[in-house]
Amino acid sequence: MTDRVGLVFVISGPSGSGKGTVVDILREIYDEIGVSVSATSRSPRPGEADGVNYYYKTREEFESLIKNGEVLEYTQYNSNYYGTLKSEADKITASGKDLILEIEIDGGGQVKRLLGDKCINIMLIAPDAAELERRLRDRGTETEEAILGRLARAKEEIKEGIKMDYLVVNETGKSRECAEKLLTIIKAEHMRAHRAENYLKKNFPEN
Amino acid sequence: MTDRVGLVFVISGPSGSGKGTVVDILREIYDEIGVSVSATSRSPRPGEADGVNYYYKTREEFESLIKNGEVLEYTQYNSNYYGTLKSEADKITASGKDLILEIEIDGGGQVKRLLGDKCINIMLIAPDAAELERRLRDRGTETEEAILGRLARAKEEIKEGIKMDYLVVNETGKSRECAEKLLTIIKAEHMRAHRAENYLKKNFPEN
Repeated sequence: MTDRVGLVFVISGPSGSGKGTVVDILREIYDEIGVSVSATSRSPRPGEADGVNYYYKTREEFESLIKNGEVLEYTQYNSNYYGTLKSEADKITASGKDLILEIEIDGGGQVKRLLGDKCINIMLIAPDAAELERRLRDRGTETEEAILGRLARAKEEIKEGIKMDYLVVNETGKSRECAEKLLTIIKAEHMRAHRAENYLKKNFPEN
Repeated sequence: MTDRVGLVFVISGPSGSGKGTVVDILREIYDEIGVSVSATSRSPRPGEADGVNYYYKTREEFESLIKNGEVLEYTQYNSNYYGTLKSEADKITASGKDLILEIEIDGGGQVKRLLGDKCINIMLIAPDAAELERRLRDRGTETEEAILGRLARAKEEIKEGIKMDYLVVNETGKSRECAEKLLTIIKAEHMRAHRAENYLKKNFPEN
């Protein structure tokens, strides 16, 4: 186990990619995922413990961590920061486990800058433009203008997908198959030759 | 099918890697492999046809093809050349099929220089030095000197394995599992984002 190099898989996807369901299934079928404790600037609630539920930071501390490149990705909700600390990712990967980060479309580049080759960016997409539009309309809760805006943005993001490490089509009604495609990528990445340095040193020592 | 980019997987492995058996199984479990016709400098036998059994070349033609970078890999046997033409690989990959080349350890770099990113180098290795030695001794047909020479060479080659794209451990008695690892790599490589250009153009056209 100690010669297994833990990796960080950043999974993103524009509206209509079906990312949420797929990542939920991936977490069920892949057991080498480390449990990551997030950081937040909100106050602990009764019964919560630092380092268990969250790492609790003041707003100023959180902003200073962001500035220093110590936060892999974050979001704001109810004027509080929520995010993943680089130190937490390092702890998990050092133990040989992988970290799965499900983030917004423009966050993967940032994680890669901070983690280098240990970060693998994967984008999920709908199979084609017509199906993408159908998925966005099916929500049935938005104005025509909002739908068209969301569709245009999703198409722009998909075009940028070519810059990711992997682009995975999430066929309609096949979330399980899509999660298995992610698992295929994860397994293959662990077989990349340049990650085998420790394995070779241990199992084929010089003599 | 037309937007599927065919790839060339070069599978190598030092003595004791068990490469032959694993590649045989891979050919059975993966059906997107194109059938490659080799080139040779030996004369056609009665009933053989050019472009069916082999592409028949004179010795001079074959050597000129090698010199011009038109031969991906070759070997000599009974003073005749046998090899794979780059044009044959291009034909197969253009049809969306993959090509599997099982070659000697030092040939992968050459194929990559000729095919670029369409070539993926994979090395199979024994799990560790002790098992490697056991496999080499088990053949029982060689002198101690020959065994030790082969062992030293295999260890050198394994050390170079770090420069491959993928390094795959072939556990003893698990050829089938190892072939499945190769299939995992093949499937993942087809999901690499930069290969999706044609897919995106076709399914998310500008408008």
